[in-house]
Amino acid sequence: MGTEPATDILEATYHTLSEYGYADLTLQDIAAEADTSKASIHYYYGSKEQLFVALVDFLYERHADNFNAADDGTPSERLDSLLRTLLTDEAGTSDRKFRTAMLEMQAQAPYHEAIRDRLADFDDRLFDQFRGIVEAGIETGTFDSSVDPASAAALLVTTVRGAHVREVAVNHSSEQLYATVSGYAEAHLLADRQRGVVR
Amino acid sequence: MGTEPATDILEATYHTLSEYGYADLTLQDIAAEADTSKASIHYYYGSKEQLFVALVDFLYERHADNFNAADDGTPSERLDSLLRTLLTDEAGTSDRKFRTAMLEMQAQAPYHEAIRDRLADFDDRLFDQFRGIVEAGIETGTFDSSVDPASAAALLVTTVRGAHVREVAVNHSSEQLYATVSGYAEAHLLADRQRGVVR
Repeated sequence: MGTEPATDILEATYHTLSEYGYADLTLQDIAAEADTSKASIHYYYGSKEQLFVALVDFLYERHADNFNAADDGTPSERLDSLLRTLLTDEAGTSDRKFRTAMLEMQAQAPYHEAIRDRLADFDDRLFDQFRGIVEAGIETGTFDSSVDPASAAALLVTTVRGAHVREVAVNHSSEQLYATVSGYAEAHLLADRQRGVVR
Repeated sequence: MGTEPATDILEATYHTLSEYGYADLTLQDIAAEADTSKASIHYYYGSKEQLFVALVDFLYERHADNFNAADDGTPSERLDSLLRTLLTDEAGTSDRKFRTAMLEMQAQAPYHEAIRDRLADFDDRLFDQFRGIVEAGIETGTFDSSVDPASAAALLVTTVRGAHVREVAVNHSSEQLYATVSGYAEAHLLADRQRGVVR
């Protein structure tokens, strides 16, 4: 800790959420972890719902690098880089902790509109990034022009979400899935003349 | 209600879970919904954790038809039937309620080993069903023999899980995704000579 109190509270919320789960988490747990008081949490964040909306933003900002990591290189390289970042643990960050916190927030979404709206933004941005890469690949001739970028992007976002849920809920390695999704991308997206030539 | 008390309690658990969410749910809410007492819930199910383990079994049994619906027809028909059952609302059952309850249970899995084990069984059975269909398709020559059935099944299970999460958490229609996943299956699984000939 030792940064801004508001940030300390979010760090503590993130940590206690991943450890105890949303259902068993109290503001008192968060206050103890942040070395502050429940009154301070209310001062900075108002309600428990507002605190968790702020947490979703905090998680997004922290992991925004994941979504922007894939801005350099050819479309194939950018796709591979984004899939690696999303599905493997190569970055060395605590991805499982992040995915556990995200699953908790997804489970709260049906009951909290503000959380749902933030998660929908998250989802849209990832979709846009995949779609942009597929469009760029079609423009440069690397990807098959008969592929619909929006459909391909929808399938990729959905697969990534499913991989994270299966990792957190039933201990299926997202990393194993990386090879499968990359294989799909190769077989389904690459134009015929590119197959086996580039990745 | 009006069936066995133990079943009434599970029905009430399912209903109140979908309505309030796990975090805000009390045994008192469930008892009120089931028109019984907290003592009766403890008598039939012991702890809250055991009640929710029983709920996962109950949800599985109720939706086992979904997993067995695809036993007739050609491999292509069986695959299509299973994807339709899992991703569309054609069955007319309250699929969203089921998916909301499942997301809640998935979010509890990191903290409750018994729930995690049951969900892993669930996951394995769906994986086996997809793998069996792909294997049958390869045997009959409908599906491309270069496809690895386990990888294809892993991708399909993952995509279905992701579709359900996106439906519940960010209101993305699973139904829209049905067309995309079917398109993937057609492009990726069918042997070349079968493309455009059968589904």
